Amino acid sequence: MSSIQLFPVPDLPLIQPGDRLAALIVDGLAHIDEQVQATDIIVIAQKVVSKAEGRIIRLADVEPDEEARRIAAIVDKDPQVVKVILDDSRAVIRTRRGLLVTEQQGGWICANAGVDRSNVPPGANGDDYVTLLPVDADASAEAIRQAFIELIGVAPAIIITDSHGRAWRIGTVGISIGCAGLPPLWDQRGLHDLYGYELMSSEECIVDELAAAASLVMGQSNEGQPVVIVRGYSIPTDAKSAPARTLQRPAAMDAFR
Amino acid sequence: MSSIQLFPVPDLPLIQPGDRLAALIVDGLAHIDEQVQATDIIVIAQKVVSKAEGRIIRLADVEPDEEARRIAAIVDKDPQVVKVILDDSRAVIRTRRGLLVTEQQGGWICANAGVDRSNVPPGANGDDYVTLLPVDADASAEAIRQAFIELIGVAPAIIITDSHGRAWRIGTVGISIGCAGLPPLWDQRGLHDLYGYELMSSEECIVDELAAAASLVMGQSNEGQPVVIVRGYSIPTDAKSAPARTLQRPAAMDAFR
Repeated sequence: MSSIQLFPVPDLPLIQPGDRLAALIVDGLAHIDEQVQATDIIVIAQKVVSKAEGRIIRLADVEPDEEARRIAAIVDKDPQVVKVILDDSRAVIRTRRGLLVTEQQGGWICANAGVDRSNVPPGANGDDYVTLLPVDADASAEAIRQAFIELIGVAPAIIITDSHGRAWRIGTVGISIGCAGLPPLWDQRGLHDLYGYELMSSEECIVDELAAAASLVMGQSNEGQPVVIVRGYSIPTDAKSAPARTLQRPAAMDAFR
Repeated sequence: MSSIQLFPVPDLPLIQPGDRLAALIVDGLAHIDEQVQATDIIVIAQKVVSKAEGRIIRLADVEPDEEARRIAAIVDKDPQVVKVILDDSRAVIRTRRGLLVTEQQGGWICANAGVDRSNVPPGANGDDYVTLLPVDADASAEAIRQAFIELIGVAPAIIITDSHGRAWRIGTVGISIGCAGLPPLWDQRGLHDLYGYELMSSEECIVDELAAAASLVMGQSNEGQPVVIVRGYSIPTDAKSAPARTLQRPAAMDAFR
């Protein structure tokens, strides 16, 4: 019986620039007499990866330009935050009051280029900070995986998550912006159903489903549980590992741009 | 520690029109000495709900009209299947070779109006059949919930799932097209983060995340495990239950139509 279990890594400190996440995860799990297993999938919220990598900007240092002020007026957001968003974006996809969807520098199409104010500690002088997405979350995931290999000789799969809205559905869901050690898609085309029909259009995005599942655990603690272990999921062995960026629909294949 | 467990209901028969899903689930769980608990979330693949409700069409009975033939030529699909899709749709959203996105009669925007050929048994005479989405999957979920109350005096939450593609991302993920006994959205707006910032845009679609999580278990068995129990997830108590159709973004709020 394929049973899956999800649990949070307890007792993680507030992450600071330079922190080694793999070591903190190993320490946290030790508090509940757990160890990382080779078949585990470790799901990590983007926010803590960004903080560990120093992807933090002090808003007081940001000078909004003409373009940022113009768009800020349309979307009704802080011009300094809009400037940060635009600086980390390749293209503006949609603007409307309350909504700024861009193609982030790494290729992700999402609200505010993933720039986020929550859970970033204000400086001692009361300054406001925001986080950016990791420069390359696939590389971040691979680096964390390598850190586990060095530290404990075990290579778990790693997924880095963010929360994205959807074009047709209300509410956000966890998705993967970076992964290592597993295939993002499970291509079921060519498999046959119970009656022998070939499945024609079943390319299941397992890293996004794993990210969504882990978000259920993360979300219950008001972002205090940014790392979740998924245990018991059999990673399909018929597909090669690939970066999460391969999930980005090329503009030429994208019917909605 | 908020640990979540997911496991499939074993030994379900192939579902036939008229089958009572609640009773079959109770029987299946008995095979592994399990019972439905009041805090369980029972996630059921749309396909078996559609079959139990008789939402099956024999393609030989379908006469494609001019419009169906025209669109079939554009999307390169069977004109009979396209006719079934159009008959169950309010509007065509996007057409392209290999892609037919419509607004299904129930309001869901998805590929092929959810019409699906896989895992429908061919008739004795070799005829081909397809399934339609349930007429009202929220009502289906509520009826299944009521059946559990009558049968065992326990009212678990119910989610009915389908697999949807996404505008910006490759691959499908499990989402909810019907639910009962839980709120589809967990509105975190008004909550505060670790540093006291009010979370402004955190409306988490928990039924879609639960659907995605359950799909990981369903998918591993080539559609042979259409019902999954989610145990250990604390349904947010600060939100009222609501139908999944409230997740449909009204056209006026939809920046991509």
